[in-house]
Amino acid sequence: MMEFLTGVKQCDTLEISELLDPRRVGTRVKVNGAVHAVNNMGAVVFVILRKREGLLQCVSEKKEPEQEGKLPREGSAVELEGVLERDERAPHGVEIRIQRLTVLSAPEEAMPLSVSKWKLNTSLDAKLNYRAVSLRNIRERAKFKIQEGIVRGFRNFLYSQGFTEIHTPKVGARSAEGGANLFRLEYFHHPAVLQQSPQLYKQMMVGVFDRVFETGPVFRAEKHNTKRHLNEYTSLDLEMGYIGSFEDIMAMETGFLQYTMELLKQDYSGELRILEVTLPEAARIPRVRFDEAKRLVSEKYNRKIRNPFDLEPEEEALIGRYFQEEYDADFVFVTHYPSKKRPFYAMDDSADPRYTLSFDLLFHGLEITTGGQRIHDYRMLVDKIASRGMTEEGLEHYLSAFKHGMPPHGGLGIGLERLTMKLVGEDNIRETTLFPRDLSRLEP
Amino acid sequence: MMEFLTGVKQCDTLEISELLDPRRVGTRVKVNGAVHAVNNMGAVVFVILRKREGLLQCVSEKKEPEQEGKLPREGSAVELEGVLERDERAPHGVEIRIQRLTVLSAPEEAMPLSVSKWKLNTSLDAKLNYRAVSLRNIRERAKFKIQEGIVRGFRNFLYSQGFTEIHTPKVGARSAEGGANLFRLEYFHHPAVLQQSPQLYKQMMVGVFDRVFETGPVFRAEKHNTKRHLNEYTSLDLEMGYIGSFEDIMAMETGFLQYTMELLKQDYSGELRILEVTLPEAARIPRVRFDEAKRLVSEKYNRKIRNPFDLEPEEEALIGRYFQEEYDADFVFVTHYPSKKRPFYAMDDSADPRYTLSFDLLFHGLEITTGGQRIHDYRMLVDKIASRGMTEEGLEHYLSAFKHGMPPHGGLGIGLERLTMKLVGEDNIRETTLFPRDLSRLEP
Repeated sequence: MMEFLTGVKQCDTLEISELLDPRRVGTRVKVNGAVHAVNNMGAVVFVILRKREGLLQCVSEKKEPEQEGKLPREGSAVELEGVLERDERAPHGVEIRIQRLTVLSAPEEAMPLSVSKWKLNTSLDAKLNYRAVSLRNIRERAKFKIQEGIVRGFRNFLYSQGFTEIHTPKVGARSAEGGANLFRLEYFHHPAVLQQSPQLYKQMMVGVFDRVFETGPVFRAEKHNTKRHLNEYTSLDLEMGYIGSFEDIMAMETGFLQYTMELLKQDYSGELRILEVTLPEAARIPRVRFDEAKRLVSEKYNRKIRNPFDLEPEEEALIGRYFQEEYDADFVFVTHYPSKKRPFYAMDDSADPRYTLSFDLLFHGLEITTGGQRIHDYRMLVDKIASRGMTEEGLEHYLSAFKHGMPPHGGLGIGLERLTMKLVGEDNIRETTLFPRDLSRLEP
Repeated sequence: MMEFLTGVKQCDTLEISELLDPRRVGTRVKVNGAVHAVNNMGAVVFVILRKREGLLQCVSEKKEPEQEGKLPREGSAVELEGVLERDERAPHGVEIRIQRLTVLSAPEEAMPLSVSKWKLNTSLDAKLNYRAVSLRNIRERAKFKIQEGIVRGFRNFLYSQGFTEIHTPKVGARSAEGGANLFRLEYFHHPAVLQQSPQLYKQMMVGVFDRVFETGPVFRAEKHNTKRHLNEYTSLDLEMGYIGSFEDIMAMETGFLQYTMELLKQDYSGELRILEVTLPEAARIPRVRFDEAKRLVSEKYNRKIRNPFDLEPEEEALIGRYFQEEYDADFVFVTHYPSKKRPFYAMDDSADPRYTLSFDLLFHGLEITTGGQRIHDYRMLVDKIASRGMTEEGLEHYLSAFKHGMPPHGGLGIGLERLTMKLVGEDNIRETTLFPRDLSRLEP
């Protein structure tokens, strides 16, 4: 007799959202989960389960679990049955009176960190060294649910705007910007690099799909050891054709932020509450020219402009502060970055070619996005490459897209971990990266 | 006066789906797009625009575009205005009578391939060598919209099943299975590898989120040069805790396939039509043991079993054929692969430890998924590692998840490009990869 799979198996264990159906109260229910904490109160024992939707309080009069043997240890995976009752003091307002408890799997050793504490009061290093354990803390875990919501928002919004998702290779013969910050490897006896950005690929794909996006890893061999740099991060990239000006790209990003804040409010309210996050305001985002922004903060904060063509991290922070103070703005677009500071593919401003039609988005004073209009004309692109003293070698495929026609276009890249960090109010990017890669960290 | 961005800019150009609103017929409309083909019929000229939703026929009585200068060349990006009219012979049943046409950007050179032909009659090599151009062909492009639909289906379905999306690093100190097929690089003076799979990370994250998934690149330095291998591909990975048996994982995959075929039918019907795809049947997927499958094809096709513990590609193809012929099945789960052929983390079958609680999913005779139950007990895992003569070095972080408690769990990985290839009926995986990486191809 041939057997068949016919679809998802219905399970008889319930999730927290199912337990909140008022008709369940007073009935016998079955759940599973990890033992997050065991609180022995003498006459009763509280077994707090960690489930994917949150914590669930289960309670046993002492004799019963003892009939099954010892109390389950923290870290055990268990399945239990009991009667669901209302209890205002319990998380979600319900608890289960345990009638039967089975240990599915028991830990070998006690927890190295107090993951059941509300706040994991330990160093960042300890959190990262025990990553598989530290993320079991409810607050630690919540940050990555918020991160999921951001990526979901990005994709859902862009699908609604006619974008196509693409998957571009991370190993290649060369990368968008070249230079020293490339990881190099040998690829079947050929020199290869890890992509710093999907830039060249997403531009090529504008000629195919008009509007494209990708959410994937990028690699930067930068020797920065700061709170805001990673050597591998997740980049949310988009590129769009037929733009009227580079404003269209900033407008698209504003739309993404508005959509995503709404999505977080709707679907991630539990996590926002756990982390006590106040969502930023994205209804109106001010824009200011690079040179004007420098002038504004120089005047207000009495700071000398040292280099008119560069923006120091402190100046970025002050621009953020300025717009917070003057306009109550969480975000600000800084536009018209100097041409020298932008890659070869950036479109110079025809009104003043020392500047580009580009922008950064600052969120509370930290750059979370770089974007702008790109050169679409083949001749202009070839000339720019030559004027920079670059070679066309390795760019032949990229250039062929332009040789055979490309619409006016532009795009942006958002650093996912940075956006998450600022959103949840962390001050080190490693706090919002599952497994960060930095100068000294290659494990876990 | 400070300026603000307030959301997506409404554009006055229309997309094809907007043009299909019957109220638009007879009105003046504005569109943009790439000139896909120009057909000069003497008295009239057809300018076929390629837009993201398909082709759009625009027609001009000859005098008019000449007033604006020359006809736009294939590959130009244009904006045009004119009156929308019904025309049964045109794609989508409408055409635009051009009144004004502006060239936004013109190509430098003529197309190297006839991308405007319905089928791009050229070699795979030529397609890949001119990737930015060949994908502009409507049929070539459609394959990657279908691919988008698969990934969308995977994510949407898994969100609905309580999975959390994760982002795990692609550069690490070691990878899941070790061995010869790793790309190696230097990471700030430390030896590093590119991940073959997110296996170890997704398992660790089961202890945090219960159910996780990831869609991202994986890297295999295999020296295979076949029609079904890539050295970098997109893996759709999931891992789920609290399973009752490894059947739950196959059931989840069946659910994914059912959901995704429905999504493709709903949202990608245009592309399915363009590619003349008949979607496979996923309502009931047969399952058969590895040894039984070997016996069945050996008997039916009169083929000697050479190695009872290995499955040759020809046998895989025959298993596919057998189930197509006997059960009209497009898919078949082959279960209980020999322990020797599975990695250390695979759960052996306690009934016969020479076999594992694992499976492959074959689609028309090609393996598109490998999955199974994993060992969740720390002691069992440590013993298995020792019995294989492996070292725990580099696995400390992974093992710590188990030391501190892990639920019974399992998961799978789906090769996106292989699934796309079989779905659209291609026979070379490079046909369904935007920018394939193989032994000889590192560009574009």
